[in-house]
Amino acid sequence: MQMILKNDSILKHKLDILITGGTVLTMTNGWETIEHAAVGIKDGTIRFVARTDEIPLHDVQAHDTIDALGSLVMPGLINTHTHLPMVCFRGLADDLPLMDWLNNYIFPAEARYVNRDMVYHGAMLAIAEMILSGTTTFCDGYFYESRVARAAVDAGMRALPCQGFIDFPTKDNPNPADNIAIAEKFLDKWESVSPLITPAFFCHAPYTCSPETLMTIKQIARERGVLYLTHLAETRDEVHTIRERYGRTPVRHLHDIGVLDEHTVAVHCTWVDDEEIAIMAETGTRVSHNPESNMKLAAGIAPVPKMIDAGITVGLGTDGCASNNDLDLFSEMDMAAKVHKVALLDPTVMDASTVLRMATIDGAKVLGIDDMVGSVETGKRADLIIIDMNKPHLTPLYNNCSHLVYAASGADVMTSIIDGQVVMRDRRILTFDVDDIMREVRRIGATIRNGYNGPSY
Amino acid sequence: MQMILKNDSILKHKLDILITGGTVLTMTNGWETIEHAAVGIKDGTIRFVARTDEIPLHDVQAHDTIDALGSLVMPGLINTHTHLPMVCFRGLADDLPLMDWLNNYIFPAEARYVNRDMVYHGAMLAIAEMILSGTTTFCDGYFYESRVARAAVDAGMRALPCQGFIDFPTKDNPNPADNIAIAEKFLDKWESVSPLITPAFFCHAPYTCSPETLMTIKQIARERGVLYLTHLAETRDEVHTIRERYGRTPVRHLHDIGVLDEHTVAVHCTWVDDEEIAIMAETGTRVSHNPESNMKLAAGIAPVPKMIDAGITVGLGTDGCASNNDLDLFSEMDMAAKVHKVALLDPTVMDASTVLRMATIDGAKVLGIDDMVGSVETGKRADLIIIDMNKPHLTPLYNNCSHLVYAASGADVMTSIIDGQVVMRDRRILTFDVDDIMREVRRIGATIRNGYNGPSY
Repeated sequence: MQMILKNDSILKHKLDILITGGTVLTMTNGWETIEHAAVGIKDGTIRFVARTDEIPLHDVQAHDTIDALGSLVMPGLINTHTHLPMVCFRGLADDLPLMDWLNNYIFPAEARYVNRDMVYHGAMLAIAEMILSGTTTFCDGYFYESRVARAAVDAGMRALPCQGFIDFPTKDNPNPADNIAIAEKFLDKWESVSPLITPAFFCHAPYTCSPETLMTIKQIARERGVLYLTHLAETRDEVHTIRERYGRTPVRHLHDIGVLDEHTVAVHCTWVDDEEIAIMAETGTRVSHNPESNMKLAAGIAPVPKMIDAGITVGLGTDGCASNNDLDLFSEMDMAAKVHKVALLDPTVMDASTVLRMATIDGAKVLGIDDMVGSVETGKRADLIIIDMNKPHLTPLYNNCSHLVYAASGADVMTSIIDGQVVMRDRRILTFDVDDIMREVRRIGATIRNGYNGPSY
Repeated sequence: MQMILKNDSILKHKLDILITGGTVLTMTNGWETIEHAAVGIKDGTIRFVARTDEIPLHDVQAHDTIDALGSLVMPGLINTHTHLPMVCFRGLADDLPLMDWLNNYIFPAEARYVNRDMVYHGAMLAIAEMILSGTTTFCDGYFYESRVARAAVDAGMRALPCQGFIDFPTKDNPNPADNIAIAEKFLDKWESVSPLITPAFFCHAPYTCSPETLMTIKQIARERGVLYLTHLAETRDEVHTIRERYGRTPVRHLHDIGVLDEHTVAVHCTWVDDEEIAIMAETGTRVSHNPESNMKLAAGIAPVPKMIDAGITVGLGTDGCASNNDLDLFSEMDMAAKVHKVALLDPTVMDASTVLRMATIDGAKVLGIDDMVGSVETGKRADLIIIDMNKPHLTPLYNNCSHLVYAASGADVMTSIIDGQVVMRDRRILTFDVDDIMREVRRIGATIRNGYNGPSY
């Protein structure tokens, strides 16, 4: 908290946005909660966070004043792992054995229907859904990822679009021998386009990428200082495959080839043993936990409480919409808090505050952007959401964390600010025409449905 | 589906409500889905469900016509187990060991703060939350249950309020020796008050009720033809306690004392073995499954797929708000579908249609009211909800069941009709003043908070 005096320089310039009257959940290390708060935003940056009685409000001028009385103001949620364009396959095939689902439904649908148009419009629809449910940053990996990055810029959404790598030809990379050129080109293209965009790399998995691919891309990531992600130890089958192929389990394999460090994010880690957890902790490897996807696909329950105890930084992800089937981090928080309690028969693990950290500041740490976002602090970029607490299901209110994790839903988020821009107000998205995007995705969906031969019920 | 001719008697009398243009998910045995449908309602009863081109719409007159274009029309959801007034303790204490939570937080709070005022206003708030999330029927057990029944009548909500029994003095029953008189009095009072109310009995649990209590109340239930519920086999500790006390496990115990039949609902059944599942199947015992509460309290994962395979009818419940912490059956469906998949490492169990049945027609069967509600059929009482599918997170649409279970939330329900009365329209509750109820519960919450000495974070 800070006292702002009448002659502070912040008062000399008109603010872009002033939020008053709400309770701010800062998500800073000290867990500071500020009631009757004022948040000042200018040039995309949080300029002050203070109690309203500690600032001379009469002297503060702002182009836009948002009344947050009765609301919570908190950092926007951070989705550390998703495949946005897969919204186009949402509900196309569910409740199937994993390999049947992948080989007979998802892969054929992707082979047939993924193109630049589908990726862009799917990403736009997904961004609408995320903004409407309180997410302000996502980290994505898919084909034609530049179209996802373009969607983020067009929508005013913060993103880490990841160029993907896999050891077989894809539509957007017919020759994996071009990987290095593609990697460099993606960074060159996106590094300076917008303060919203932080490009990164995604090697699909150790069972689809050779050690050479994994190491080559990691080397470029190190040279260029960008984040490196991979799916890891998602299923028991994967563990068996990697063990057969390399004589070691997935985490040990990646450690042995030298790609684990503080700028590597291992996604899923459903099947990791205690020694592998120790390796990830020692190397500073980050983890993206996607409980809903892991549950729906019956992949398994990642030992996240053990990881956190070991000091690993864990964030939350929704995964793609074909395996969730939504992008709402509120339900992801609820699921994350509950599934580990019942798996360990211990109601004290994954308490609400831990889970809320995973969805905010720890998610920012996982993605290496915690200097920019993840908490409401002076100097950070202004990625904030405002949640209306005046709802029957959020009444009475004893504990903000508890309500956010166990009772709130994405639909309670009223206003969302990303990089200082109001992208949603009173649940209306301001940066693009959502109806138009829904029409486009319905058109794409109709094509997919017409070509679909799977079961229906 | 039915063809309605110009001279059908239904056309001679003006309808109360006509719903047109939506897709009706009937939830009948044949899983009939009717697109471009019309639903006619008069005197609280569904008079027809048909395709709009099969009825002479120009000849149909209605006092109220609801345009459901782009929406799903389906049976209202049925919450088979809850303790509504516990909304007043929502978020008061979470993430604690079960016995610590119960003995040091919930029981003391109940001893101190439960009264007729708290029960009524808590129930009204809970009903608001349920209506806003698509529930049209609940089965409740708490102290001062007549106040819950009164709240349901005042709100226009369908309810099975249950008179509770437990072998120690409570505020509303200081002398358990009065059980028989209290049971009879409760039925006499509520049996004919309103078509919305179906009174029933709730014996707390076999570890808090003697065999004599359990048998006596069941006998009255049989004589009077009402439903009988009990918590059963919720925790491993309970199984140990019952085994020590009676030399048999909970289900066997209840079977041996003769209280299991088609009008008994066993709530939770987290720890039941294969033989106990067979006993429940043979006796026709119904089960109320409350996955979110079981997960949050780390009670365990009930073997529901096995129960369903054995032919047991299973419905969904939210349990009370102190262990969930909401009353949204949409999130309960999502959780129910996912937790069993991951527990069994089998993505095919608890498919979306099974879970949707649990929340509708099977819930009605569990409560013995499937002749009245649970599906959209001519002759049934009109308990319907209308869901706006024109949302980013419900786009595109390949499969209604999938979206309802895996992607929709309670906030997508726009309109709710109970017993032929529109209780919510465009998300505004029409039968009572929700703001007023929230104020009352905040007042109650402030009293509880002031007397609360537990941890906060």
